[in-house]
Amino acid sequence: MRAAHINPFIMATIEVFDTMVQCPLTRGKPSMKKGNLPEHDITGIIGYTGLAEGCVVISISLPLALHATSMMLGKEVNGIDHDVIDAVGELANMIAGQAKKHLEALKLRVTLPTVVSGRSHHIGYPEGVTAMCIPFDGELGSMSVEFALVEVGTVVV
Amino acid sequence: MRAAHINPFIMATIEVFDTMVQCPLTRGKPSMKKGNLPEHDITGIIGYTGLAEGCVVISISLPLALHATSMMLGKEVNGIDHDVIDAVGELANMIAGQAKKHLEALKLRVTLPTVVSGRSHHIGYPEGVTAMCIPFDGELGSMSVEFALVEVGTVVV
Repeated sequence: MRAAHINPFIMATIEVFDTMVQCPLTRGKPSMKKGNLPEHDITGIIGYTGLAEGCVVISISLPLALHATSMMLGKEVNGIDHDVIDAVGELANMIAGQAKKHLEALKLRVTLPTVVSGRSHHIGYPEGVTAMCIPFDGELGSMSVEFALVEVGTVVV
Repeated sequence: MRAAHINPFIMATIEVFDTMVQCPLTRGKPSMKKGNLPEHDITGIIGYTGLAEGCVVISISLPLALHATSMMLGKEVNGIDHDVIDAVGELANMIAGQAKKHLEALKLRVTLPTVVSGRSHHIGYPEGVTAMCIPFDGELGSMSVEFALVEVGTVVV
């Protein structure tokens, strides 16, 4: 894990929420993820392969997830349904994709998203893998971005 | 999704449980995944990139997960803790890796595992992506393997 990896995820998240959700976010203090409770209600997971392996996990509060879905699909939603799952998957995909652009030297490829919902679900990482967690707040709710990247090849910066 | 992709995941799962967990499994009938409820208590997710993108999701009943952890780590465990999360991540990793060997033409790479636990967690896939689900039963409990693979390049068979 390098400190230089944090900014690309901050930029990516703010860019995606500004443009796709029209909800400006302010970021809190990044910290190492402790425990495995997700920060919020619904979680989107994208894996990375390339010169680093890992994942980005976005966790979104229900009100913000519903607002994001409404903005992205142009229709009102009132609870977690397939539209919300798709929207959270697509947000994870866009954030992972934007961060990848800012981390060009790692030659990352992203997987399809999986989305996890359900009360008190827990997300665990392999032993020895440190995930960073960056909290964000917006007018319509909170979200967080966690990422773990383990370099597996020679990175030419 | 090709029918030819199903056997590699069946073989991989049986091989890994035979050798690592010493728990022979018998497989049920593969079917298209409906809804997004996981089959069992604890879920390991691995992403694929390569000439196909997708994921493999293993879902394990608590008794089988505890037994697998005991066999893999050589110590008794009584509930979901970090050891169980690691063991389920490692099982997902081994099954994804074995299946990858049987699917050489797709030139797959696997991501780090993430593990989800918690009551009634739901796993969702992107719209339009069909996941196959293969159920397995063993003396010590049940598990299932779901996978989704979307070809993105030219596959030379």
